Amino acid sequence: MPDIDPWGDVEIGNYKQKMEKFGIDPIEEVEDRLPDHRFIRRNIVFGHRDLDTLLDARDEGEEFAMMTGIMPSGIFHFGHKCVVDQIKMYQQMGAQVTIAAADIEAYNTRDMSLEEARELVIEEYLKNYAALGIDLENVDFYFQSKAGNDHLMRSKLFSRYLTQNQVEATYGSAEPGKIASALTQYADILRPQFEENGGKKPTVVPVGLDQDPHIRLTRDVASKFKDQDFMKPSSTYNKFMRGLQGGKMSSSDPKSYIALTDDIEDAKQKIDEAKTGGRDTLEEHREKGAKLSEDMVFELLTFHLVKDDKELARIKEEYSSGEMLSGEIKQIAKQKLEEFLTDHQEKRREKAPEVEQYIEENFDFET
Amino acid sequence: MPDIDPWGDVEIGNYKQKMEKFGIDPIEEVEDRLPDHRFIRRNIVFGHRDLDTLLDARDEGEEFAMMTGIMPSGIFHFGHKCVVDQIKMYQQMGAQVTIAAADIEAYNTRDMSLEEARELVIEEYLKNYAALGIDLENVDFYFQSKAGNDHLMRSKLFSRYLTQNQVEATYGSAEPGKIASALTQYADILRPQFEENGGKKPTVVPVGLDQDPHIRLTRDVASKFKDQDFMKPSSTYNKFMRGLQGGKMSSSDPKSYIALTDDIEDAKQKIDEAKTGGRDTLEEHREKGAKLSEDMVFELLTFHLVKDDKELARIKEEYSSGEMLSGEIKQIAKQKLEEFLTDHQEKRREKAPEVEQYIEENFDFET
Repeated sequence: MPDIDPWGDVEIGNYKQKMEKFGIDPIEEVEDRLPDHRFIRRNIVFGHRDLDTLLDARDEGEEFAMMTGIMPSGIFHFGHKCVVDQIKMYQQMGAQVTIAAADIEAYNTRDMSLEEARELVIEEYLKNYAALGIDLENVDFYFQSKAGNDHLMRSKLFSRYLTQNQVEATYGSAEPGKIASALTQYADILRPQFEENGGKKPTVVPVGLDQDPHIRLTRDVASKFKDQDFMKPSSTYNKFMRGLQGGKMSSSDPKSYIALTDDIEDAKQKIDEAKTGGRDTLEEHREKGAKLSEDMVFELLTFHLVKDDKELARIKEEYSSGEMLSGEIKQIAKQKLEEFLTDHQEKRREKAPEVEQYIEENFDFET
Repeated sequence: MPDIDPWGDVEIGNYKQKMEKFGIDPIEEVEDRLPDHRFIRRNIVFGHRDLDTLLDARDEGEEFAMMTGIMPSGIFHFGHKCVVDQIKMYQQMGAQVTIAAADIEAYNTRDMSLEEARELVIEEYLKNYAALGIDLENVDFYFQSKAGNDHLMRSKLFSRYLTQNQVEATYGSAEPGKIASALTQYADILRPQFEENGGKKPTVVPVGLDQDPHIRLTRDVASKFKDQDFMKPSSTYNKFMRGLQGGKMSSSDPKSYIALTDDIEDAKQKIDEAKTGGRDTLEEHREKGAKLSEDMVFELLTFHLVKDDKELARIKEEYSSGEMLSGEIKQIAKQKLEEFLTDHQEKRREKAPEVEQYIEENFDFET
């Protein structure tokens, strides 16, 4: 079995060990060259590979790109929002943004129909992306199934540069559905560098560690491909938000996440039922303080709901010292969540027709 | 190892055993429903699978198709001519004809560049096809690398319906290059049935036994694919011409074949040097006659140069009885070859500009 399986449920336990093994550097190394973003400051984005190359290009005023994929796994929740925040960060830095909707991969590895995948991409992802501030007219968005002849063709050519051994060592098996999906992903990652998209340029792909196998093999293919000169893609690595009950946040378990389209009262209810690091008795809590590392409410605040570091530091201090109770941090979270969701859902209603129009104008789903 | 490897050099020894194992029926079963063609009469096409379905469609006046591929392996020789003769036969029966130039497969499995593959396809195959009577305007000809978004996309979807075990049992390994090529081939074979090409219809693919693995897996995928209703493709099986020296006819050994563009004197020289079934001494030859099964000149006459069965029967009788000598059958072959090549090469010169124009008008090779 591979160390990391992008199609599996493996939890990434020991970040450090894996980082060393796969040549991933701590984000601190390049922190002062990156925008002042809470994900960087709070070490939510904790690692990178070759990000210097991209930052050099930015400093020189050269073109650079950011690429990400949408795997339509289900309802759009706060876990998915991490990617969107990173798209915005790179867009503000001046990156060209490419977004691939992985409908072929969903078809091949999740037994979804292309129509189901598309529907999810539009309703759950694109409409929420738009509400969160992504302007689809300013990015290269596409469905893999509509990626174009030359994109899909190149993804087939890439197969020449891989061996079965390499695929098995990296993904654990050489199932045809996995290989076809992986090859499509390599083309997705290299798409910003295709000649028709301006050619060779530094490209960053923000991922979780579970997706690193795709990055590694794309880098390998990029360096071997004979028909065009590519730069090896760069990558950054972000921590995953855990589920509200602890454990994995999963689209198949609605209690584990808050969806950005959740009814606001339901969402607040989920906060009430979330796992916290509060102690068993008031006395113990006042004495020892909350265990922050086990507190899913504090995690939600850290990832998304508190943007101001000072405010977060105050909450952290008061909660971990025992001054603040679990009920109180939940109160804070519920209030911030209500504000966020009210605003977001209004924006989503506003943007939804634009997204539908964008899809109609740009994609032909007759075939 | 699989019984038959389409990428290998395996010689097909025992036809009968393999036919039974893979459910291939003798061509005699449907002979009276097929055109009166020397390949059928002489058992050069010896087997079929499901050809009845296609013949039923023809009898009912329904659409049916014939599909074949061009693997650009080198110089176009008499071995390659067998396919062209079969294309013409099916075209005369009323079949829609689809011809795929396997440039992606050449790239992935033969380390060829797409440009080398295209050049070979045009110079060696298309120009000779045209001279042999194939009108490219009347067929669906395409390069795999230009097959179109929906064609290449579907070939990726097919991967969901295959397992690694199945691929390994059929092809001997699950190398990514093989898988990507095989998936492209399945789309090639099913292309006549794509909705944009008129939908579901009987399709015959004339192949050698070595290509049967692709047929079997395409039939499997066709029956499982969820997004469109396909008929399982039919197939016919033809014997391979052996090389002029006995053994395999191979593009990498010019002495093993006569190219349709060979200089006529060189070609006649190759006949002079060919392996025959003549006996060691004149006396022995007169007594026992030639061993026809070991005579490569007789094989060339049978496959291509003598169309009239009565004439062939006469040669067979005289040669196998010892009345005709090797030198004499070579004389016959050289004369017929000269006539054929003179005529063919003139037609090729005539048709070459049309082929070049056809390519220019139909394909954009800028990218």
